[in-house]
Amino acid sequence: MIGKSVPRVDAYEKVTGRAKFTDDMILDKCLVAKVCHATIGNGIVKSIDTSEAEALDGVVKVVTFKDVPNHCYPTPGHPWSVELAHQDVADRNLLTGRVRYYGDDIAAVVAEDEVTASRALKLIKVEYEEYPVVLSPRLSMRGSEHPIHLDKKDNILARSSFAIGDVDKGLEDAAVQIHRSYKTPIVQHCHIENNISYAYMEKGRIVVVSSTQIPHIVRRVVGQALGIPWGQVRVIKPYVGGGFGNKQEVLYEPLNAFLTMQVGGRPVKIELTREETFTNTRTRHSIEYEMTAGVDQEGHLLAKEMITYSNQGAYASHGHAIAANGLTASRLQYACPNIRGEAYTVYTNCPTAGAMRGYGIPQVCYATESFMDDIAYEIGMDPLEFRRKNLIHGYYEDAYLKPIAANSNGIFECLDKGAAYIHWDEKRKAYADQTGDIRRGVGMALFSYKTGVWPISLEIAGARLSLNQDGSVQLQVGATEIGQGADTVFSQMAAETLHMDISRVHIVTMQDTDVTPFDTGAYASRQSFVTGTAVKECAQLLKQRILDYARTLVPGNVDRLELEDGYILADGRQAISLEELAMESYYSLGNSSVLTAEVSRQVKKNTVATGCCFAEVEVDMKLGKIKVLDIVNVHDSGILLNPQLAAMQVHGGMSMGMGCGLSEQLLLDEKTGRPLNGTLLDYKLMTTMDTPDLTAEFVELNDPMGPYGNKALGEPPAIPGAPAIRNAVLHATGIGFAEIPLTPQRLIDGFTKAGLI
Amino acid sequence: MIGKSVPRVDAYEKVTGRAKFTDDMILDKCLVAKVCHATIGNGIVKSIDTSEAEALDGVVKVVTFKDVPNHCYPTPGHPWSVELAHQDVADRNLLTGRVRYYGDDIAAVVAEDEVTASRALKLIKVEYEEYPVVLSPRLSMRGSEHPIHLDKKDNILARSSFAIGDVDKGLEDAAVQIHRSYKTPIVQHCHIENNISYAYMEKGRIVVVSSTQIPHIVRRVVGQALGIPWGQVRVIKPYVGGGFGNKQEVLYEPLNAFLTMQVGGRPVKIELTREETFTNTRTRHSIEYEMTAGVDQEGHLLAKEMITYSNQGAYASHGHAIAANGLTASRLQYACPNIRGEAYTVYTNCPTAGAMRGYGIPQVCYATESFMDDIAYEIGMDPLEFRRKNLIHGYYEDAYLKPIAANSNGIFECLDKGAAYIHWDEKRKAYADQTGDIRRGVGMALFSYKTGVWPISLEIAGARLSLNQDGSVQLQVGATEIGQGADTVFSQMAAETLHMDISRVHIVTMQDTDVTPFDTGAYASRQSFVTGTAVKECAQLLKQRILDYARTLVPGNVDRLELEDGYILADGRQAISLEELAMESYYSLGNSSVLTAEVSRQVKKNTVATGCCFAEVEVDMKLGKIKVLDIVNVHDSGILLNPQLAAMQVHGGMSMGMGCGLSEQLLLDEKTGRPLNGTLLDYKLMTTMDTPDLTAEFVELNDPMGPYGNKALGEPPAIPGAPAIRNAVLHATGIGFAEIPLTPQRLIDGFTKAGLI
Repeated sequence: MIGKSVPRVDAYEKVTGRAKFTDDMILDKCLVAKVCHATIGNGIVKSIDTSEAEALDGVVKVVTFKDVPNHCYPTPGHPWSVELAHQDVADRNLLTGRVRYYGDDIAAVVAEDEVTASRALKLIKVEYEEYPVVLSPRLSMRGSEHPIHLDKKDNILARSSFAIGDVDKGLEDAAVQIHRSYKTPIVQHCHIENNISYAYMEKGRIVVVSSTQIPHIVRRVVGQALGIPWGQVRVIKPYVGGGFGNKQEVLYEPLNAFLTMQVGGRPVKIELTREETFTNTRTRHSIEYEMTAGVDQEGHLLAKEMITYSNQGAYASHGHAIAANGLTASRLQYACPNIRGEAYTVYTNCPTAGAMRGYGIPQVCYATESFMDDIAYEIGMDPLEFRRKNLIHGYYEDAYLKPIAANSNGIFECLDKGAAYIHWDEKRKAYADQTGDIRRGVGMALFSYKTGVWPISLEIAGARLSLNQDGSVQLQVGATEIGQGADTVFSQMAAETLHMDISRVHIVTMQDTDVTPFDTGAYASRQSFVTGTAVKECAQLLKQRILDYARTLVPGNVDRLELEDGYILADGRQAISLEELAMESYYSLGNSSVLTAEVSRQVKKNTVATGCCFAEVEVDMKLGKIKVLDIVNVHDSGILLNPQLAAMQVHGGMSMGMGCGLSEQLLLDEKTGRPLNGTLLDYKLMTTMDTPDLTAEFVELNDPMGPYGNKALGEPPAIPGAPAIRNAVLHATGIGFAEIPLTPQRLIDGFTKAGLI
Repeated sequence: MIGKSVPRVDAYEKVTGRAKFTDDMILDKCLVAKVCHATIGNGIVKSIDTSEAEALDGVVKVVTFKDVPNHCYPTPGHPWSVELAHQDVADRNLLTGRVRYYGDDIAAVVAEDEVTASRALKLIKVEYEEYPVVLSPRLSMRGSEHPIHLDKKDNILARSSFAIGDVDKGLEDAAVQIHRSYKTPIVQHCHIENNISYAYMEKGRIVVVSSTQIPHIVRRVVGQALGIPWGQVRVIKPYVGGGFGNKQEVLYEPLNAFLTMQVGGRPVKIELTREETFTNTRTRHSIEYEMTAGVDQEGHLLAKEMITYSNQGAYASHGHAIAANGLTASRLQYACPNIRGEAYTVYTNCPTAGAMRGYGIPQVCYATESFMDDIAYEIGMDPLEFRRKNLIHGYYEDAYLKPIAANSNGIFECLDKGAAYIHWDEKRKAYADQTGDIRRGVGMALFSYKTGVWPISLEIAGARLSLNQDGSVQLQVGATEIGQGADTVFSQMAAETLHMDISRVHIVTMQDTDVTPFDTGAYASRQSFVTGTAVKECAQLLKQRILDYARTLVPGNVDRLELEDGYILADGRQAISLEELAMESYYSLGNSSVLTAEVSRQVKKNTVATGCCFAEVEVDMKLGKIKVLDIVNVHDSGILLNPQLAAMQVHGGMSMGMGCGLSEQLLLDEKTGRPLNGTLLDYKLMTTMDTPDLTAEFVELNDPMGPYGNKALGEPPAIPGAPAIRNAVLHATGIGFAEIPLTPQRLIDGFTKAGLI
């Protein structure tokens, strides 16, 4: 079943609209909560008067920052750890009187219906004392009179650095030394389903139903935020309408849990609007890079340095992990004897940045791959040739985080495929030295991406299988289907190892922390690798139990029992069907015992996926418009579990990468920090009209670490698109832009400055 | 935690009305199905015209008996077996054109709402050919021109018999030989929540949410009825508002599943009315007995014979198992060298009889214990002394079904307690030789009851535990809470074996066959015994895993590790808390693995519970009214898991027993078989106004078979009340009534015939 493009197991439910998402599951008489957001970007609440709101008919409860537990909790969807150094930063209460960004949560209203809740919000009277707003990390780290968080006087959440070899010496020895700056924008995930949850109490415990990627982590964080034992919390995850990392964070679930407790356990719903999703959830980090490199005469990298300033926004969220992930990536893939990296993650008064598909790698890939093209341009070398010269062949491993290694490395095959597809050599030549208003170019970028979070964080996954009476199996995992096809590939895995058709595997889609095996959830492109390992072991265990039970049923002396296509083979002959065996296991008066298997497995391995993007663009110099004529992603993600699903993953990621490169950016008012385009009307997400045909190609190397030869594919597709397009524009126009997205304004400014228009 | 009267774990939910029952869980836009019931008691449907019903606005689908799969399926909630001899009788389709009782299901309507469905029913035109109705088993077994089921020409569903010793010789040798006839009525369970289910399709599978005692069996029977693989069916059981055995049968769930398939998988609900619950679900079997016995000079039983005619009604349902259970009971408890039994289960045109609390034993107890009093009356012996003389002391076992045995036997202690409570000796003397209009009497009855169904059927149970981060545990069982307190005692069991407070055990109330361990469900007073065995083993397994993991955490050389009160004790000292250990198991970077345990256990044991009822009554001779002045049940059910819950069980059962003895009977029109009093207005269920204070007492012997020394308690309380009251009336009036309930009409008739009034 592995490697086959079987249809998604949830296809019919989703196409017919029957799949139950969080809002579909709410029973009657659910109260509605709305959050009162600050209307300043930095400062404190001097006074808050909720009396008029409380007096409004239909308002059940109003709470302010004064009413919530006064202890901090962490929000990111990390696995947690018993070691303090591996725990996340806890820097927020449920509500706050210290406003750290425009829209910060200062109060909440619970009402009988949504209209009443919204009206009540307007009746809350707030007086503020305002502080100056700082949106730039490099400005913010100079410090301010009122640090954003008291324990970080210089507003620096964290810094880290590393050095390999002697970079200064390397730069000295270099034939050419180059320095460039790059910057990426704040972008938003724009999942179809806004963040939503509802909560109620049951047997003295709190139940939270949430559109989340990480139900087991939500359970933990709700416990932490409320200061109650984690076993008192139950979290249920229905179908999810996209997450992209924004639902790998515990945002309003703790407040929701708190609110139901405040109204005696009645069900309370918090459904964010699209505007709130833009402002009050999480964004991709805007990161600034200072890059320096030296190359020798032949174009070999002798030294490189990267200094990173990551704009964290108002709260720690995933914090420095994003910038640190970029530092790690900067050490991989390219051979360079001297490498230095330094990263700062800085609190600002921007909306909080968190996890988003690629987790810092789209940003660092943008900087690194733009820089690679800029160096090649500088030394007059074909940028693909320049990369081939510097890329490591075959195995490599990270110098610091030992298990992170390219256990299979198909980057050269990827580059060959991409170059052939785009007709690299012809077009690089054909498009050289263009003039005129319309110019074309081809560009490319490549990346590497690790699979899962080990050894930086814990990797653990669980799976449970049980044999039904008809020889089919129930499969339960704590890992989550969030639209990416996880349920389908887990079902394929179980079917593969149990040698049965996928129609015989019934996967339980809904996670419920009361009954679901423990797994940390959907992030870091980990599930098919980490959870896949657990599913495989669980299936092997069930298979062994089936064969052990078969031995009690198959007569005679049999050497070898096998499970194949729903039959037990005894020395190669069909001895008994799996259905007959299952019926015996349930209903034999002599020897019945239902066959089940469960594993909870720590996975201490990692492997690096790789790939590249090649794009051809047409630039209208006077309109400042880029048209992507053709674009291809080529991925080495090991063996494809389901080629069609894999292609769909790549298509979605490519669209995201193009958006980041061409049009997406959340703009903030410089003075107040207020989002200027926090709606889907104003925020320029790629539409089908903006998107050319997308091509996904693959190099399938069997990775020895992957449970089925597979490695990361969930996030990588979103990584290389933006720099590939940026580099194609460089090829077309000779202008290497430092900052994305490449909006018409930015292009016109750049071309004007360069005297091209 | 065992033996403590901890509050029910579901008390708060149920008292506040928050507990979700089936109807509470239905989401919007559920279609409503109504069943078209026959308006004759025996015959065939000659023609059926649904065109007008189909044309009604809002009707989505009409199906008749012509549209349903033409294969039969069994309905009772038995465990099933791979052995043909242990499988249930399959004698019905989803709908039928052969009407076998008044109200038989011939068609069904699916509509957008209930009113439309009801209106559509009235538009269905049916023409019948009527056959004579036969309501008496002894008449029916003479055969008829149109047998109720074609394969049973004599209408006898089954017969069985046994003989121990030589009964004829024993009777010959007896000093006194006595013969009597007895008869019990058709009664209904009258659970608060009528039968209800709804069904829909999901990923090509059928989901049925049902108020059932036996979700895993519903899964199987839906598969059988529809002829689809059982793994294609998912059954969910929410809270249940009482079952008493009526929900130990698969009634309308298969039709509901079929109907959702007919409307493309849209949700369809079938909610029976109270009237349908009376007529179309299941009743307690009305059984007629012919009893013969011989006793010697000293009052020892020398021989006894019991011939049983069980009125099965229209369909096999649990069938002969009820009468056969009575045969088994007739062999137990009393010492008698020569015993003979014979039983017939006969199809009639009555509503179908099935499982009901006590499963045939209230009936046989009524006959046997009335007979014991009648013999004692005949030979002029105190009926309690007569019983003491004939009861077996200590261990006994059944002659045929070997593992059925009184492994502990507290009947003599029970009798002592009951006699002392009611002041037996004084009152037997005081109430002798009364005259006048108001007379008093004391009476008693005793019984034995096996625990679970082994070895007659399969006993299998499953349990799953997992350790939460805070050291609490999740407990999952496939056994069901149906109001009896099962969830509470399972939680106590896990807490006991894991040596923690019950507040640390979070039991999953809802059963979902996709994720719930396999267990056959709530019946036969089996769960605390059979499932309890699985819960105990599962808790022992988890405990062992906790201690094994503790060994990796506790430093130094430790001989003995124990789990006590949430701590690991190393050689008696608190070494680490269970919470710390649990946190390590989840979040240790070095060695994390969530600790879980699951067992699926066949339980090949049985043990006999016993007990008695003593009652004092006042009879108004002219009004024919019985007033129960005082009543006590004394039970030997082994160690009480939760004394308060046990007392509640006994109170409920006593009320049921009194109802059966005094007022309850479903009356049928002799000509058509139509129920005459099938509503709660006309059917005389005991109300609080009819019920005196109820006293429950216990003799707690530690039964060696019970997982915690416990044995059957769920059903026994309903058994001895009716004969105890009947015998008290005998004491008061000298009249030994043959038939219950003892309605005013029956009393006046009896007293008149005896010349007392």
